Amino acid sequence: MPSEFGLIRQYFTRPSADSGVLLGVGDDAALLAPPVGEVLAATVDTLVAGRHFPEATSPAAIAHKALAVNLSDLAAMGATPRWFLLALTLPEASEAFLSEFAAALFALADAAGIALVGGDTTRGPLAISITALGSVPPAQALRRSGARPGDGIYVSGTVGDAGLGLREALTPGETGLSAAQAAYVRNRLDYPQPRLALGTALRGRATACLDISDGLAQDLGHILTASGVGAVLDLEALPLSPALRALPEREAWRLALTAGDDYELCFTLPDGLTPPVSPDGVAVTRIGTVTAAPGLALRCRGERVEEELSGYRHF
Amino acid sequence: MPSEFGLIRQYFTRPSADSGVLLGVGDDAALLAPPVGEVLAATVDTLVAGRHFPEATSPAAIAHKALAVNLSDLAAMGATPRWFLLALTLPEASEAFLSEFAAALFALADAAGIALVGGDTTRGPLAISITALGSVPPAQALRRSGARPGDGIYVSGTVGDAGLGLREALTPGETGLSAAQAAYVRNRLDYPQPRLALGTALRGRATACLDISDGLAQDLGHILTASGVGAVLDLEALPLSPALRALPEREAWRLALTAGDDYELCFTLPDGLTPPVSPDGVAVTRIGTVTAAPGLALRCRGERVEEELSGYRHF
Repeated sequence: MPSEFGLIRQYFTRPSADSGVLLGVGDDAALLAPPVGEVLAATVDTLVAGRHFPEATSPAAIAHKALAVNLSDLAAMGATPRWFLLALTLPEASEAFLSEFAAALFALADAAGIALVGGDTTRGPLAISITALGSVPPAQALRRSGARPGDGIYVSGTVGDAGLGLREALTPGETGLSAAQAAYVRNRLDYPQPRLALGTALRGRATACLDISDGLAQDLGHILTASGVGAVLDLEALPLSPALRALPEREAWRLALTAGDDYELCFTLPDGLTPPVSPDGVAVTRIGTVTAAPGLALRCRGERVEEELSGYRHF
Repeated sequence: MPSEFGLIRQYFTRPSADSGVLLGVGDDAALLAPPVGEVLAATVDTLVAGRHFPEATSPAAIAHKALAVNLSDLAAMGATPRWFLLALTLPEASEAFLSEFAAALFALADAAGIALVGGDTTRGPLAISITALGSVPPAQALRRSGARPGDGIYVSGTVGDAGLGLREALTPGETGLSAAQAAYVRNRLDYPQPRLALGTALRGRATACLDISDGLAQDLGHILTASGVGAVLDLEALPLSPALRALPEREAWRLALTAGDDYELCFTLPDGLTPPVSPDGVAVTRIGTVTAAPGLALRCRGERVEEELSGYRHF
């Protein structure tokens, strides 16, 4: 069986075209030159088998998701992806796993323009922890704390798909979806698309922004808390895919509000400001308004409704 | 049971005094301003329970070691520690574990001047993955690739202690050590001291440097390979603690050459250059000489000896 060094060399060492990389994989640490005039955005996320993805998930999907969720955090800050470090814990040094994993990892890395600059491969229960580093002009970074009463609340793409995809993954066929819809929601679960182009387009415009990992209601709640404001959401405005629209309306809304893993951006814009057209064509929908009164209120066609909302709990 | 957010807030959120931290724990990513004129040094290391530390290791020792091994990588680059991100996977959200873990983590972080700026807490088999970021003037960073024939080879502190400590941890009492010596080698295993002051003192002087995590022979081999040189080591020059000296000489040398986890620095200096006195008082010992002929040769009191050498294998 190849040694750690052999494995890392074989699958994870590639020459870097990024001029900001003075020294990549292979020394005690990478040496990196951040762009002048920008600050670093740094984030870490771990995926554990059986908890963040079903055990039967393909190596390609695991690799994609492990990097995508970190890129999504950079997108939510309006940051440009630069470099990442991979801590990979594997039950065994399987070449089949590693080759498929590495191919998918680098496919997304190349698409996002992010370079692998360091890593650590250890033996143990399957888990992937990635630290992603990006850069952004400091005054244009998108924080959670700037939402103001009257701001419009927006979300990218459609919400609730990944939640329905998880249901389909755990109980195949029982969701009543067509084969095409089932494939669509599984793809949304396994291959989230970080909204990097939208994040960059929101620089200096959005008053607050984050990505939806734990459910729209819970994550929007973080913006409200950090900004010291409240919000009213219009349920009929929630952007739903055809797969979600095939469900009873209340069930679809419930998934849209509480299911995690969508990795869409939720952001606020000052009243009157039109959302930017994202270069990658992802749709943006206004779903509500920031209020001075605290708390998250739900409205359906103008009428107030009550819903018990809770997002994904990590523990 | 508290939520992930509650746990992170309670134990891992502290106001940062570091002016380089524009935004710390609590947003999608931290925002960090590296010192002007320096480049980033970035490294990641994962510790898995039962593999990198015995299952019975205390939360304090686990926390210390998880951060120390990363700080040791920064020391080996000559970098000043700046920020770190913690990916913590726990079987359960135990307050007893977290409070002891956090106290030890911050004790070492404060001593090293490094600030926690991000993290992710997940449920799963115990594992700790830390990404450490430091900074260093680019021309002064200590790489592995600059050793030249004739350079002296040096090592800090004493070597082999952690290997003996692991033996003592796995088979208590069977090593024949005195109680004081047993406690000493256990401490060397559980509480490695990153040689940060020495690393900084070596800036612009050492032609190559790394930290000893997998065994002196194997790690020195990385310098030799990266630099395209060989070396001769004088066994009788290896710096050994009294605990190692209590062993038969050959066994002590074997541990010193092949046991990992010492986290001492191994470096090369041009012939005639005196090693700097480390501000923290750690001793530095010359143990050999870089040669043009490839390979690692061992000498004992001037006579060539043959040893089968292999360090720690991660897989």
